[in-house]
Amino acid sequence: MRYVSPMVIASLTVTPVGTETPSLSRYVAECARVLDESGVKHTLTPMGSVLEGSLDEILQVVRKVHEIPFSQGVLRVSTRLTIDDRRDKEATAQGKLDSVEKRLKKEMD
Amino acid sequence: MRYVSPMVIASLTVTPVGTETPSLSRYVAECARVLDESGVKHTLTPMGSVLEGSLDEILQVVRKVHEIPFSQGVLRVSTRLTIDDRRDKEATAQGKLDSVEKRLKKEMD
Amino acid sequence: MRYVSPMVIASLTVTPVGTETPSLSRYVAECARVLDESGVKHTLTPMGSVLEGSLDEILQVVRKVHEIPFSQGVLRVSTRLTIDDRRDKEATAQGKLDSVEKRLKKEMD
Amino acid sequence: MRYVSPMVIASLTVTPVGTETPSLSRYVAECARVLDESGVKHTLTPMGSVLEGSLDEILQVVRKVHEIPFSQGVLRVSTRLTIDDRRDKEATAQGKLDSVEKRLKKEMD
Repeated sequence: MRYVSPMVIASLTVTPVGTETPSLSRYVAECARVLDESGVKHTLTPMGSVLEGSLDEILQVVRKVHEIPFSQGVLRVSTRLTIDDRRDKEATAQGKLDSVEKRLKKEMD
Repeated sequence: MRYVSPMVIASLTVTPVGTETPSLSRYVAECARVLDESGVKHTLTPMGSVLEGSLDEILQVVRKVHEIPFSQGVLRVSTRLTIDDRRDKEATAQGKLDSVEKRLKKEMD
Repeated sequence: MRYVSPMVIASLTVTPVGTETPSLSRYVAECARVLDESGVKHTLTPMGSVLEGSLDEILQVVRKVHEIPFSQGVLRVSTRLTIDDRRDKEATAQGKLDSVEKRLKKEMD
Repeated sequence: MRYVSPMVIASLTVTPVGTETPSLSRYVAECARVLDESGVKHTLTPMGSVLEGSLDEILQVVRKVHEIPFSQGVLRVSTRLTIDDRRDKEATAQGKLDSVEKRLKKEMD
């Protein structure tokens, strides 16, 4: 099977399970550092990261980031990925936000 | 059962199913408008909205926003909610981001 | 706003954060017990529970189940809810499975 | 980086966006067929599929299943994957259910 591999937008949340305390920032920071090094475009939100790239790039980086808490001693990790893949036109994270903003402004006119 | 009802942070994505075109911005814009009116603190991200408020406020606004695409003629809606509820200390969306930033800076020192 | 409130199908996952060990079965069992008592139709899967009921019933039971790990001493809970709400016809969890099965059989004829 | 690659349990939901009707069973059936052919252990639930396999197998099959609705003419696909990866002991989907059942029985004694 051949297919186009356009840019997709994804959200990623990596949750370590069985950490001693409720604070997860040392794990999130390390995941963010690995995302930074990956070259994949990404933004940290309070509920996970938003990624932009080809589907293959994104699956590769998810594979890598999912490993991080294990390398920090955690024994169980719950990782959630949502992929938004649109092939009728080029989609970007910023473009999605802009198109909603534009509609909101139009309605107020 | 009595319990404290502190602030929680949540992410919300409302996806209309069976729309004629792949574009969902008219539905997202209307949901954003209802969120704006609700008084619940929220930020739009490219993959959904991040909400902040008491758990009860958030469940109420989710109930409301989930109805929006139906009121616009859609016949099926898939709504996803993730709640992050932490009760050992007061958590805010900005605080979560700050605490990751602080760690990243410390590591680079 | 008035609306029909038909049956919806939902999936629910409640993840305690900051437990001492990676094992979560004591929390999942307690959540399952509360679901059993709630009267809401539900099935346990290896990745969460599938619920069936009116949207209001489901939001109420989610509210209750989300509290469980806190009542067991956990200080942070991550709860994920996905709602599939279809209003062009009556949908049931079993009906969704049947309709996929029927298609798979037809294709093999 | 070297790491053990044990069995993980995952849930997968593939949602076509911009279909003409709210019915998605023709897409779900085709995804189920591809899962069947993949050799990866899986069960259909009313809210998605539960998969069992190595992380790499699962990411590969997710990549494949995500393509299905596009090959059926859909122009936008929203795919959600949750990975539960536990490395302190061998975990299976059935084992997770059994361990909850066992606790529920013990409590009732």
